[in-house]
Formats: sequence, structure tokens, C-alpha cells
Amino acid sequence: MDNPSEMKIAVRLNWDVIRAHSIERKLVNLTQTLADVGERAAIREITSVASSGLNGDDAAVLPSAPPNSRTVAATDLMVEGRHFLREWSTPREIGKKAILRNFADVEAMGARPVAALLAIAAPGDTPVPFVRGIAEGIAEHSSFYNAELVGGDLTKSDLLVINITAVGFLGGSLPALTLDGARAGQQVVAHGKIGHSAAGLALLERFGRNLPAGHEHLQPLIDAHCAPWLNPGRGVIARAAGVTAMTDNSDGLIQDCTTMAEHSCVHMDLDPQALQPEELLCQAADLLDCDPWEWVLSGGEDHTLIGTTAKEAPSGFRKIGTVTRGCGVTLGGTTPSYQKGWLSF
Amino acid sequence: MDNPSEMKIAVRLNWDVIRAHSIERKLVNLTQTLADVGERAAIREITSVASSGLNGDDAAVLPSAPPNSRTVAATDLMVEGRHFLREWSTPREIGKKAILRNFADVEAMGARPVAALLAIAAPGDTPVPFVRGIAEGIAEHSSFYNAELVGGDLTKSDLLVINITAVGFLGGSLPALTLDGARAGQQVVAHGKIGHSAAGLALLERFGRNLPAGHEHLQPLIDAHCAPWLNPGRGVIARAAGVTAMTDNSDGLIQDCTTMAEHSCVHMDLDPQALQPEELLCQAADLLDCDPWEWVLSGGEDHTLIGTTAKEAPSGFRKIGTVTRGCGVTLGGTTPSYQKGWLSF
Repeated sequence: MDNPSEMKIAVRLNWDVIRAHSIERKLVNLTQTLADVGERAAIREITSVASSGLNGDDAAVLPSAPPNSRTVAATDLMVEGRHFLREWSTPREIGKKAILRNFADVEAMGARPVAALLAIAAPGDTPVPFVRGIAEGIAEHSSFYNAELVGGDLTKSDLLVINITAVGFLGGSLPALTLDGARAGQQVVAHGKIGHSAAGLALLERFGRNLPAGHEHLQPLIDAHCAPWLNPGRGVIARAAGVTAMTDNSDGLIQDCTTMAEHSCVHMDLDPQALQPEELLCQAADLLDCDPWEWVLSGGEDHTLIGTTAKEAPSGFRKIGTVTRGCGVTLGGTTPSYQKGWLSF
Repeated sequence: MDNPSEMKIAVRLNWDVIRAHSIERKLVNLTQTLADVGERAAIREITSVASSGLNGDDAAVLPSAPPNSRTVAATDLMVEGRHFLREWSTPREIGKKAILRNFADVEAMGARPVAALLAIAAPGDTPVPFVRGIAEGIAEHSSFYNAELVGGDLTKSDLLVINITAVGFLGGSLPALTLDGARAGQQVVAHGKIGHSAAGLALLERFGRNLPAGHEHLQPLIDAHCAPWLNPGRGVIARAAGVTAMTDNSDGLIQDCTTMAEHSCVHMDLDPQALQPEELLCQAADLLDCDPWEWVLSGGEDHTLIGTTAKEAPSGFRKIGTVTRGCGVTLGGTTPSYQKGWLSF
């Protein structure tokens, strides 16, 4: 705990507010820490790589949304040692993952991410380039969505904690893709890889970042864990193409489908053929001597979009199951062998 | 650091998603911790006291804004031991303060707060009633703004960190109350108390929560620190009444005015008569043998709104200075004796 005298007075960091304090500008070098340069210089590092004309006041004012739009918001915390390790992830990857987790939640409503806010609590000995790297990852992933980092907060803490809040717009009159929109007779569809992030984590746990010789081709699994990817706009496309319920595969496929099934008061039967672990997963499982189905069914953190529709699977989506009357989730009509997903405590 | 095996898989907590898992509902008693009940029951505690029909999916979809509205967003972290101490603040007060800090930033744009997202990182031994208390404080303060807690995240951490993101709407065609809108010839106006939060902190540092006999009437100062208050809607009123620039007194009056003056390329001269420390501040300063001007000029964390206008001071605002050509901030024409405000590192 800090000396209580350090608690003095509030923090409200408006990044461009601080950027304007030009008299205090200093050059930051690679060995300097947050404590060395102070918050203003650190924030300038962030805003220099993740710049936005919207960032610059007590709060960010977003551009007018299209007519008939609604605002969508999601927030997510990442704690060092729990959601990432600096030994396993580069700062850029941490920034990318932080953005993707939140933007996937916005996409899962059928909405378009437009802005992100970043709040970092970090120890004083955190290297400035580390924070800059996080901002670079955020800027890079945000740019694919035409979204910007529009504000944030930076404060001292004994533990590194990163919070992203994503804001998006949901245009037009179609309903949002909520969890309760699945109906019997529909098919379950998915866009993106399933089980790759969990496989990557298992590889990291065994080998760290150094895959054994001859197994370097498994690197995409590690990448899927450290910096997952979701094709921008898939949620918007799904909504336009008739998807009625959607979530993202964050806690584990069976758990996320169960959540959707419970909300919609339906049963889902997933197709084991469609979910058959890919070759890369099987190779990783062989190397680690484990069952790739565990990654597919209970892995999560892929941020794959999973939805239901009575129409054709939208472009980029594939059928992975069917919705029927009843409750719960089965795999090929039977209880899945792996069901457990993430629980925080 | 947690066991890396606990890092498995992602966290994406959508509170009403979890609320729907009715099969796992348990009664929470006063001695239980987050580790005892698990995240779902803890989140049910939060959503039971800070309920919202908007909370319940991957992301929150806010109601349609009035025509011609823009969305405004601000975020702010509070770290235990740095921004609050459990010995000094009740959970309700911590919740109130977390909301107020963010809503003040939205009001300082002339906008109306409509929603908040709460992300908590907390140790497993955190009592559930503590988290419930934070939610109660959030719900209470939000209700004054007709705003709701619409989503959030809860995760395990060695350190208690609370992040609030506020979302607001800025209606109509008038510009937002940015920091760069002050013009020479205007007056500086303020709504709310100045220096009270810093005085309250000084009292807490000396006496904790137990004011010495005969000084109990200083309690409002402690309250101003632990749970500051801002009359809802003052920012909206100020914008309608012709205020052109605004911020809130969060880092310290001189520092916040300096930020506004720099952004607007003007000079501000504050009026020592108008800022004369109130009787309560003088009594606290006598008790602590210190100078109440330090609290007024460099205290901050009051979240008082400070603006500039060429018109009459809006209802509830008072004149505290004038804007002239030049740069910097003076007090009665001279350099203020206290200028330093909050810096994080």
C-alpha cells in the first residue's frame, strides 16, 4: 500500500489535456520507467502512437452516430499474472488482446465498435516502452475497425491492471443480437477458430514462447492466445443477414452456448463433425499428450462469434449445430465430455 | 501472482447473463467472501442492488439518444491504498465516489450521464457485502442522474481496483464544453464547494474517521472527501446558459484552471475574495494548524464544475475570476501560493 499521504487529491487524466502541457515535454528513452518520466510524459507516449482528435477533454465526445443508432458499451479488465504474463506476451499483444476482447463483445451485439477507453494501473517501475507497446497494439487492432482510442486514465498501482471499455454504434431498426433470440428450428453458426487460444495457452504452459524444434508451425496457436483475431464487421454482417442471437466464444464453447440456450429457453445440439479439431490442434495435442476436444469444447478466449439463424449461414460463418425445443447443450445428442469453462474465483 | 494454470481461458462477465444461471443461486451471508460464493453469486449481489434492464448481454445497448445527440464517454480507475482506504471509506462511499468522479467528467462537457459500467478486480477474500456496498453506492448516486449500471466485469486480483466508465449524451447543436472555449473578457464561474475534499483528507490523515470531541461538526468535510457530491444536471444547465469552456476541480483548482487556460490560450485571474476559505475550512485548518488556502488552491477532488462565460453566471454558479489575454493563472493578480496538484507517479 502506498503512503496515505500519496493518496492526496484525485486523479482524472485526460490525455490530451496533459499532452498540451508542452513545457514539460521530455524525450523518453527505452530504459525509463513511469516513475522516471511521470504520468504526463507516459500519456504522451500513449497518445503519440494511439492518437485521436477525439481525445482531449474531461470526456470524449464521439461523432454523431448514424440516424436511428443506439450506443453499445462493454468493459473488461485484464490483470497481470491472471490474464497475461509479460514472459509470454509482448506489450503489443497485450494491447491487441485487450481491444479484441471488448470489440468482440460489441460485435456480438451486431454493432460496430467505434471507440475505446484505456485505463491502466501500473507500478512505478513499469518501463515506458512497455506502456507504449500496449498503446501500439491497441492502435493497430483498433485501426482495423476504424475505431480510435479516445480517452483513458493512468494511475500508480502495485499491480498491473488494464481496463478497456469499448463503445460502438448499433444502426438501423433491426434488434440487437441478444442472447435470448435463439429459436427452435434454427441452426447454430460460428465465425472464426475454436480451441486455438486454449491450445496456445497449453503450449505456453509447457514450453513458454520457445516451441521445441520441429514444432514451430504450432506458433499460430500461441498467437491465437496472445493476440486473438476477429474479422472486423462480422457481427454487423451477421445481423444484416438474419442472425437472431449471438455471443462470442470467450468462456468456453459449451459454456457460452449454454448461456445462449438458457436465455433463449431452447436446446442446442452441436455437431461433432463440424467441430472436429483441426489438424493444428491435433498436432499440438499429440505433442502435449492431451485431448484436443477439451480445447474446442471448454477452451474459450477465441472470441469466435457464435450465433443462431433460420436463414443461410452468413458469409464467413459455418454451421456447427441446430437449435431445438428443450434446454441445455449436447454434442451429437450426448452430454459433452468437456463442459467446464472459466470461473474467476 | 496466481498460478498460471488459473489463467486458463478468458473472462467476459456479462452480469445478467450470469444472473440467468438460476440453478446456481445461493444465499449470500454477511461473512462470505468472493472466493466462497464465486463470481456469479457476487455479480447477482451487484445486479440485485444496481439493477438495469439494459444489463444482460455481451454488451449493453443504450436507449436511443435524442435526435442530434452525440455520445460522451469517460473512464477512471480507483486503486485501494491510493485512491481510497477501507478504514476511511465505507463501501457505499467508495461506490459513490467512483461514480461521481466519472459523471463529473461527463457533466463537464455539458452532457448528461446516462449509464455506467463497473469493472472490479478484487482479492478472493473480499467480503461479498463489501462488493454489494460498492454497488449500493453506485446505484444511489446513479439514480440522481437517472443513470443506470448497465454492465461490468469482475475478476480476481491481488489488489482491489475499481474502474468506472461513464457514458452520457450531449443533445442539441451547441458545442460541447471543451477546455479550449475560454475567451478573454469572460468571467470564471464555479458550482460547488472548493477545498472541502482536501480538508476532509487532512482530517482523516490526522484522526481517521473519529473526529475529536467538539469537532464533530467538521464531518461534512470528511464526507466531501469520501463521497463527493455534484448537483446533477449543472453541466447541462451551464451549456444551455452560455458557458463556453468547462472542467471539474479534480486535480486542484489552480492546476485545473491552468489546463483550461493553456488549452484556450488565455490568462485567468482568480478572485481571492470569491475563493476565501469558508468557515468550516478555517475551523479545520485551525484544528490541524495549517493553511486552508492550500486546500482551496491545490486540493482538488471536489469535482466542482469550473467554467467560463460571457453571460451571467448560470443558476447555481458564482463568479470566481476573470479571463484576460495572456497565459497562466494568477490569484488577485499575483502568483498563487499553492499551485501543485495531483501527479500519479
